[in-house]
Amino acid sequence: MTSLTDATPLWRASREQLEAFITRVFVTVGISGIEAQSIAQLMTQADINGSEGHGIFRLPQYIRRIKGGAVNVTPHIKIEREAAAMGLVDGDNGMGHLVMRFATQLAIQKAKSAGVAWVGVKSSNHAGPASLYASMPVAENMIGLYLAVGNANHLPAWGGLDMLLSTNPIAIALPGLEEGPVILDMATTVAAYGKVKTKAQRGQMMPEGWMMDRKGEPLLDPQRAHEGFLLPIGGYKGYGLALMFGLLAGTLNGAAMGRDVVDFNADDVTATNTGHCIVAIDISAFQSVESFAQKVDVVVRDLRASEKLPGVDSIRIPGDGSHAAREDRSKNGVPMPPALLSALSQLAESLGIDPLH
Amino acid sequence: MTSLTDATPLWRASREQLEAFITRVFVTVGISGIEAQSIAQLMTQADINGSEGHGIFRLPQYIRRIKGGAVNVTPHIKIEREAAAMGLVDGDNGMGHLVMRFATQLAIQKAKSAGVAWVGVKSSNHAGPASLYASMPVAENMIGLYLAVGNANHLPAWGGLDMLLSTNPIAIALPGLEEGPVILDMATTVAAYGKVKTKAQRGQMMPEGWMMDRKGEPLLDPQRAHEGFLLPIGGYKGYGLALMFGLLAGTLNGAAMGRDVVDFNADDVTATNTGHCIVAIDISAFQSVESFAQKVDVVVRDLRASEKLPGVDSIRIPGDGSHAAREDRSKNGVPMPPALLSALSQLAESLGIDPLH
Repeated sequence: MTSLTDATPLWRASREQLEAFITRVFVTVGISGIEAQSIAQLMTQADINGSEGHGIFRLPQYIRRIKGGAVNVTPHIKIEREAAAMGLVDGDNGMGHLVMRFATQLAIQKAKSAGVAWVGVKSSNHAGPASLYASMPVAENMIGLYLAVGNANHLPAWGGLDMLLSTNPIAIALPGLEEGPVILDMATTVAAYGKVKTKAQRGQMMPEGWMMDRKGEPLLDPQRAHEGFLLPIGGYKGYGLALMFGLLAGTLNGAAMGRDVVDFNADDVTATNTGHCIVAIDISAFQSVESFAQKVDVVVRDLRASEKLPGVDSIRIPGDGSHAAREDRSKNGVPMPPALLSALSQLAESLGIDPLH
Repeated sequence: MTSLTDATPLWRASREQLEAFITRVFVTVGISGIEAQSIAQLMTQADINGSEGHGIFRLPQYIRRIKGGAVNVTPHIKIEREAAAMGLVDGDNGMGHLVMRFATQLAIQKAKSAGVAWVGVKSSNHAGPASLYASMPVAENMIGLYLAVGNANHLPAWGGLDMLLSTNPIAIALPGLEEGPVILDMATTVAAYGKVKTKAQRGQMMPEGWMMDRKGEPLLDPQRAHEGFLLPIGGYKGYGLALMFGLLAGTLNGAAMGRDVVDFNADDVTATNTGHCIVAIDISAFQSVESFAQKVDVVVRDLRASEKLPGVDSIRIPGDGSHAAREDRSKNGVPMPPALLSALSQLAESLGIDPLH
């Protein structure tokens, strides 16, 4: 009920507070302590990295779906098929964070001997931001590439009206020496659906190009989002990317794609059979890691030093935003908007556990 | 000098005529008969597939660069490094078609045992359309994924003016059962530079969104293309894709990227050190090929059957255009615009060989 202006600094939660709270929550709904902690670490890292829409913000929804029976709290995550450079992981409908951590570790391990490894995943769930998994191989001097099928269809075919595709994202992460890591994490739509929701919450209009209505007219009012659909980047090109990424991350792994995608915002009872894939590329198989990282630095510095368009202050490299957030938030904690704090308090109360603070 | 209207049907060259002529040309400049034939088959296939900008249209430029000493006509293409699921191919500055055919065959062979293989390429040259190589694994019941560094920088960083990036393309190809193959082949810019040249030749204006001038204003006159630069799909997202694809296809392989990219349109004497990479994914490692292809059909048919936006007749699937071109041209031959025929006649005359027809 307090009226906070934009100028009021938000209360910040420390990494420890967030991890402890999220762990408490998952343990209460039946996830083992060690697995709850793993999920909590990854969700907190998402917030530290500035991926607010994919961190603790999702906690109430995750718990609602667990309580609805849509997610398995005691999954037996296993390798269903494997070869020297590939694996197919069956997530047994467990929390996506656990499944993707398992799959990424498998990809890293296989890439150490095979040079490159591609691990597909089925029967998983929403796993947070794509960059979380693409970045894991970087700590091992590898390049990470991640694709996923989104958990709600907001995108039709180019020229179509039936929303058969999701905002299927791609993330690629690679190390620099003094620059970087360079981390691209993007939906194949102009705006992710979370951005539309944020505009609606703030009572703001959307810029032209984010959404279109069923007559093909620009849709600017986020309150009317249900009357239209998201637009892909580059028109038919983004549609093509969303389709191919979905076939690779979903269909190839026996996971949901197209008409089979479950809207996990609206449905609390049905397993999503979410598909992802993660590729780990061992840089040292191609050249020395240092030489690669140095060359990445040269490219990055040339781009930064570029002459700029009128009105542009600085050139951004993919990953700059999350780097700045990480620097700030790992020291000062994660800013918590009042609406989020209130939702988390309600969640704690409903579970009968201690609140975040 | 003949004035042809758009209604005049163009003379069509058969596959055999094109292959024989291109082979003759390359043999004359010092490439062995068998290698000349390989290049000719791939260039002709590009035209049959409807990739006009990347087929025989490029022949005069290729020959100019060979005569200028920029390309090695007797390359020793070799595997510089390899592991179970990766290879790094040194193209020894040979024609890109030969280098990429070698690299793709290596990727397919390694994927047969490892499940997936990723082959990087350096010291190569322009190799024609991306889809040519992404499609090769499909004939082996595999999925192909191809990335490349383009051979001219027309794209700055988002917000920048220095053209440090190319239109770095991606192609992904996979089989359907009765539908497909589904083949995405796209530049990371809204328009490829070839399309700008075509508009200039035809005396047409470009639509807004293709190019921008150095003040950030839309550039519509293709005659003024040198005063501006191409725009990436989805703004900073397409810039991010062009950058990451370039780091993967160029930098990781020790190939040119950023400031090192040679403009092969303007320069006839310098080796381009072109980088590409090709990934082959053995579908049978994940599930039966038939089951995968059936599921691809379901997705494709759902998209095609989608309700349509007002004014839209049919939903296109990536690869539909090249499929239609292939059906027509493998039967009826490749339509040859008079300007192209004239350029090829001049080329034949300068080399002292029989013309195309």
